[in-house]
Formats: sequence, structure tokens, C-alpha cells
Amino acid sequence: MKPIKVGLLGLGTVGSGTFNVLKRNQEEIMRRAGRSIEISMVAVRNVDRAKEITKGEVEIVTDGNLVVNHPDIDIVVELIGGNDIAKDLVLKAIANGKHVVTANKALIAKHGNEVFKAAQDKGVMVAFEAAVAGGIPIIKALREGLTANRIQWIAGIINGTTNFILSEMRDKGLDFATVLKQAQALGYAEVDPTFDIEGVDAAHKLTIMASIAFGIPTQFDKAYVEGITKLEATDIEYAEQLGYRIKLLGITKRSEAGIELRVHPTLIPEKRLIANVEGAMNAVLVQGDAVGATLYYGKGAGSEPTASSVIADVVDITRLASADPEHRVPYLAFQPNALSDLTVLPISEVYTSYYLRMRVEDKPGVLADVTKILAEFSISIDAMLQKEPGEGESKTDIIMLTHQTQEKNIDAAIARIEALSSVSGKVTKLRLEELS
Amino acid sequence: MKPIKVGLLGLGTVGSGTFNVLKRNQEEIMRRAGRSIEISMVAVRNVDRAKEITKGEVEIVTDGNLVVNHPDIDIVVELIGGNDIAKDLVLKAIANGKHVVTANKALIAKHGNEVFKAAQDKGVMVAFEAAVAGGIPIIKALREGLTANRIQWIAGIINGTTNFILSEMRDKGLDFATVLKQAQALGYAEVDPTFDIEGVDAAHKLTIMASIAFGIPTQFDKAYVEGITKLEATDIEYAEQLGYRIKLLGITKRSEAGIELRVHPTLIPEKRLIANVEGAMNAVLVQGDAVGATLYYGKGAGSEPTASSVIADVVDITRLASADPEHRVPYLAFQPNALSDLTVLPISEVYTSYYLRMRVEDKPGVLADVTKILAEFSISIDAMLQKEPGEGESKTDIIMLTHQTQEKNIDAAIARIEALSSVSGKVTKLRLEELS
Repeated sequence: MKPIKVGLLGLGTVGSGTFNVLKRNQEEIMRRAGRSIEISMVAVRNVDRAKEITKGEVEIVTDGNLVVNHPDIDIVVELIGGNDIAKDLVLKAIANGKHVVTANKALIAKHGNEVFKAAQDKGVMVAFEAAVAGGIPIIKALREGLTANRIQWIAGIINGTTNFILSEMRDKGLDFATVLKQAQALGYAEVDPTFDIEGVDAAHKLTIMASIAFGIPTQFDKAYVEGITKLEATDIEYAEQLGYRIKLLGITKRSEAGIELRVHPTLIPEKRLIANVEGAMNAVLVQGDAVGATLYYGKGAGSEPTASSVIADVVDITRLASADPEHRVPYLAFQPNALSDLTVLPISEVYTSYYLRMRVEDKPGVLADVTKILAEFSISIDAMLQKEPGEGESKTDIIMLTHQTQEKNIDAAIARIEALSSVSGKVTKLRLEELS
Repeated sequence: MKPIKVGLLGLGTVGSGTFNVLKRNQEEIMRRAGRSIEISMVAVRNVDRAKEITKGEVEIVTDGNLVVNHPDIDIVVELIGGNDIAKDLVLKAIANGKHVVTANKALIAKHGNEVFKAAQDKGVMVAFEAAVAGGIPIIKALREGLTANRIQWIAGIINGTTNFILSEMRDKGLDFATVLKQAQALGYAEVDPTFDIEGVDAAHKLTIMASIAFGIPTQFDKAYVEGITKLEATDIEYAEQLGYRIKLLGITKRSEAGIELRVHPTLIPEKRLIANVEGAMNAVLVQGDAVGATLYYGKGAGSEPTASSVIADVVDITRLASADPEHRVPYLAFQPNALSDLTVLPISEVYTSYYLRMRVEDKPGVLADVTKILAEFSISIDAMLQKEPGEGESKTDIIMLTHQTQEKNIDAAIARIEALSSVSGKVTKLRLEELS
């Protein structure tokens, strides 16, 4: 059978990984796919670097249009990233009847609906395993492995940079800014780390998983996104004393009222396996009604781990290319005409548990005032920690873990607590999930 | 499009789970599969119980032949287990041109080659996700998610009963026999637990994973199988003092000389995520050359978790039924004509690290004698623990962890150590894997 011809857009970290792995494992991959997979053209900005990597074995061009318009290319692999050029080239490739593989989470999270619509009209596949959690085959697990299930929720550590920072903050008791600098020096964080530390990257990935889990269009603009920049070492320590770890989680959940879609620092019980995912590793915990909880763990980024997912998609397309289009795996796990219009809830409507830390006068009656307010809002307390005031200090910290309540309810209670004269400054609020 | 018709052989734990989940999630599954999936006939021994479960919605027969011969049935789901009747019916279903889904690990591990050959000749699919690690989609991950990789090794906790027993032994410091009785009372162990505690069940599952990972025929008879019945609470405790947990692992590894295929109690560093998999849960750690380590965790048994995998296979077959047979996912991940004849190594040829415990006279020179023997066999010591003798005792325990050496080499060294007059009885030998 004639080889599948692949055109690569981009030959950076993931592109060069894809090239190298395909070459190194060529024989093994062909024994699986039953067909040879050949990269026949690469579009890059830096031709010299590309020549070094490809050693003259592949045609190199600087205009991506030459790839997406080439009549011999079956699959276009988009590894440019971002929205502008990447989106334009992906849509052109689709219009030309080519299947597309992409690692571009921003593109799928923000423009997925448009891309899938175009692909559906042309009868081509668009695969994006590499867009979520790097080398972990989580899209495949959600989209194919768990098809029997009504998925109830997903909670994932899906950004390695922030997990590395949080692991270091906890291990060494350091504050955020110090660890960020170290992470940048080690190459675990970008020079401009905003997308990672503000939770945007995690929200892109979460948006994609939510669509696949619940069969809803991608709705990145409705995600609640809170990063780790304001997280204090103190809270990591207090959480630990209470038996919890703080992780930046992407959480999406199906409730009666709609879909929760939120990224924020979260306390989770230290006994959970996912609480012990350290450093730059990723892990996704999925709760299905039949299977219960399953967890998927591995490298969430990097050249060859991400290439592993890109190539798996290429092999899948090689296989499914000959299936009836309506029998292929649907883009978002559910058939395009069977997506649901479940509402994504604003964060104020979400129910969860909370960690509260407040600075109070160390005198009688203060705790009574605080607990009275919580009782008025029907918020019950699950655990409490009151510290001795430091030497010569008249103020101390009170830490409370609450049972589930609605976000707007706790916010109203916090406003009342902050108004107490015996409470100084703001109340620190973090969300808590038992994940059970 | 007309519904896919499924015939069920068996309606026990997994069969009733399959029936219930398919019914409960009918709409959600159809939205994914794009086609209705109907159980149209069930073959059982106990008709009354079957009627209770199916509530008269399905035709019930007592002869499995009526299912495998029925002209309207597209997919036969075999949930009888064992080798005799199950094998006969599966081969008849294949001969009749029906696709087969099975949860039967013994059948695939022992007769997989014959079954796949028959299926290949008839152009039908045989899927068996439920045969390994229950609800965890590990077959899919290995066979499709990691196609880019040269898989290097797999290490799995793939038997819930033994993991439950080991977790309890460690937690409560109890011995094997006591915990086994508790596990039987709780329903975590069968009345005849031999297959689980002797490692046979794990070896079935490991055999299947090895074939998929390395592209070799199933070779259950070449697996080295050692259960947990001889494991002592003492060793679990000493291992813990050295920073290790003991788990019953199925390990398969590719080396220069061939394939390792072995099930045995194994010391693993307590820091590894898989060391913290407790109770009846399963987890599989896979090392690929591109992706690095990935881990898959979930329920390895039970009615609905196993049904989750059965149904996922049914949906996959629904999709791939219309693909060219040579483009479907191959039975053992590699194309049938591209399997390799890599040798499975006998345990004596395997290289690994070891935990040794010996009972020695508490007098000068004993340790020198032991270490001299190890040095003669070029076995280097990684860690050592020597206990004070108990009150009024003249003997004490020495525990050693070695670096890697070949099994036949350590066995020869142990024979020499056991011959020392200062060493009493047998040396306890356990294998150790760093999993890094």
C-alpha cells in the first residue's frame, strides 16, 4: 500500500520531536499502522535549522501554503501554535480535503467549533491528542475508552509549569516569585510565563476536555480562570497541616444546573493519588458513572512526549481514513449533530468547599462572631485551625475548611466577616475538592 | 442507520453490568456511536435470574449456539470465562462472520493466537479491553495511544485481590493467611483464591499486554509466575524501613537478549506513584522511548467498571466495522504478518535487583563471610539493614538490597551463603525494581 504523506507546519520543539520519533521508530510504527508514514514536506521560518534537523531528507519550504495546497499530502500536521497563521492554514488544509493533526490547544479551545464545522463539511478528520496533557493519551481515553460512561467530572493537573512551581513552593517553603525565577532559569517556565501561571493554558486544555466529556461545543470564553500568582507559601503550609495539598486544577463537572468549567488553585486531600503528582508531571482524574474514577499520568509537555501524541493521531487517521465518515470517531466524542447546549455556569453559581484564612485579634468572642456569620449563611465548618499569636503579637490566623456551599453565598459571608472590626484585612479564600 | 445487534454469552457480574450500563446510558452512548446498540439475545444457564435482570426486554436462551448462529447478530460478547465452552463459542461466532468482544483473559492469554488467526481469516474483529485491568482503557492506550513509541517495559498492579491483601498486610502488620480470610469474608477474594494469590490471573493479563507492547504472539506458558502466598509480614516491614513497598507486579521488559515476562512480589520505591496504589485498585506503568513513563489507574474488576470496557469495545467495533480490514486496529497492535519472534527469557536469565533477608549468628566475621561471597559473584550491595538480636537471642536478621545482577548469579551466591554455618535456614529472596 502506498505511504501516507504528511506535511509538517513548524519544526520547533514538537515538530523536531515528531520528525525524530517518526524516523527512529519508523519500522515499529509501520508494523503497527500497516502502512509507511512519510514526512514529505516541512514549512518553517528558519530554513538552516530545519536542514540540520532533517538532514536533507525532506523538502523544506518557508510558505505553509505550499504544504496545505500540495496535492500529494494526505495529512497536515500543524505545530505552529497560536491563532492567526495556524488557523488560516488549518482551514485551508481542510478546504483542500486534507486531514489535520494539531497540538494547538488555543486554536481548538477558541475556534474548535468553526474548525470542526469546516472539517465535517469536507469529510476530513481533525485530531488533537497533543493539545491536552502532552504525551498522555487522555483525549483517546475520554473519547473512545470511556464511551460507555456518563462522565460526571474531570479534575486535572494539566500545566506542568505551575505544578513544578507549586511542588517547589511546598518542598522548600519558598514564595511564588522566588520559585518562578528558579523555574525560568531551569527552563520549566517561559520568559513570559503569563499563560501558564495565570491558568490560561490549563483553561484551554480544560475547555477541550469538557467538550469531549459532556458533548458540548468548545466554550473557552465561559471558563473561570484563576492562576497561582497570588498563592502564598503560608496557605500551602496550613493546607498541609490540615492534610491537603494545593494544586492548580482544571475542573469540569456536570451538575443539575449546568456545566462547571474552572481553573484555580485547589486544596485536595493528600491521600489522593493525584495529590502526589509532583514536578512538571501532568495527571487527569476522570469520574464516570460506570467505571468510577480512572487516572491518567505522564509528561504533559516536551518534544518527544508531545510528538508521541501527534504521531498516534497520524496513525489513527491512517486507519480511519477508509471508514465511513459517520463511523469515524467524532471530533468532540459525540456526533456533531448530537452536541448538547448545556449551560456553562458562572463561578458564582458553583458549589464547592472552601479554605478560609483570616487574621484576627486574639481576644474572646472573635471566633464566635465569625462562626455566627457562617451559620447565618448556612455554611458549616468541616475543620478549623487556630494558631497561637507570635511572640509579642496581638493577632493570629484562623483557618477554616467549610462544607459545600455556593460561591456567591461564601462571598457574601466573607464580605460580612471582613467588615468585623476584629478581623484585619482580606479573608483569603481557596476552593477545596475532596475528589471522591 | 439500523442498530448494531449484540448477543451476550453470560449474564453474571460483568454481563449484568453490561446490560445495565447499556440501558442506563443508551442515549449518551448513541450520541457518541452515531448508531443505536441493542442487546437482542442473551444466553445464560439461569433463566430466572436473567429474566429478573432483563425484565423481559431481551430474548433469553440457554444454548449459546443460538446466539453465535443467529443471522441478525453483529457482535457476540463473550462473558462466560474459562476456556472450554467460551473458546468453542467464540470460534463458532468468528466462523459465522461475527465480531467478538470478550473479557476472557485466560482465553486470550492461552489461545489468543488461534483465535486471532481464525478472526483474521474471516475478516472480523476480536476486542478484549475488559480482559486486562477491568475499567482502565489500558489496551487502547497501548495499542493506539502509544503507537509512536518503542515500548521499553510495563509494570502493572493488575490483580485487585492481591493488592488488597498486600495493602492490608502492610497497614495492619498482619500475616498473609489472616488477611486472606478477611478478604474472603469481604468478597475481595474468591472462595478458591488460587488464581489470584498464585499470580496466574496477573500472568494472563501480563501476557496480553506483553504481546501488544512488543508485537509478539501470546505466550502464557513462558511466563514466570510467583504469587504472594509465601510473603511474610516481616519482609513488608523491613522493605518499608528501607523506603520500599512490596506489590505483586506483572513486569514485561524488552532487553537485548529477549523479552522478560514475569509476575512476582516486587519491592518498589515508596515515592513512585504506583507504590501508592492501595486496596483493590489497579494501575499500569508503561515506559515508551518517546513519551517516557505514563501511568493508568482505576478499578481492575467489578460489574460496571468491566462493563465500561466491554461497551467501549462494542462502540469501537461499530465504528471500525466499515473500515478496510487492514486499516482496523490489529488484534495485537501490530499487523498479524508483522509479529516478531523475540524469545521470552527464562527467569534465570533476567537481570534485576534483589532484597535478601538472612538469619545469622550475631558474632564477628559473619557479615564479612556473606559480603565476600557476594563480591565473588560481582554482586554489589546498595543498602543494608542489620537488626539488634532480640532479648536473649543469639541470632539476628541481616537485610541487603543489591544492585542489578542476573537471577542465576544471585541464586548461586545464595546457595553459597546458605551453606555457611553461621547462616540459619533459607535466605529470603525478593526482586526489586526502581521503575525509573
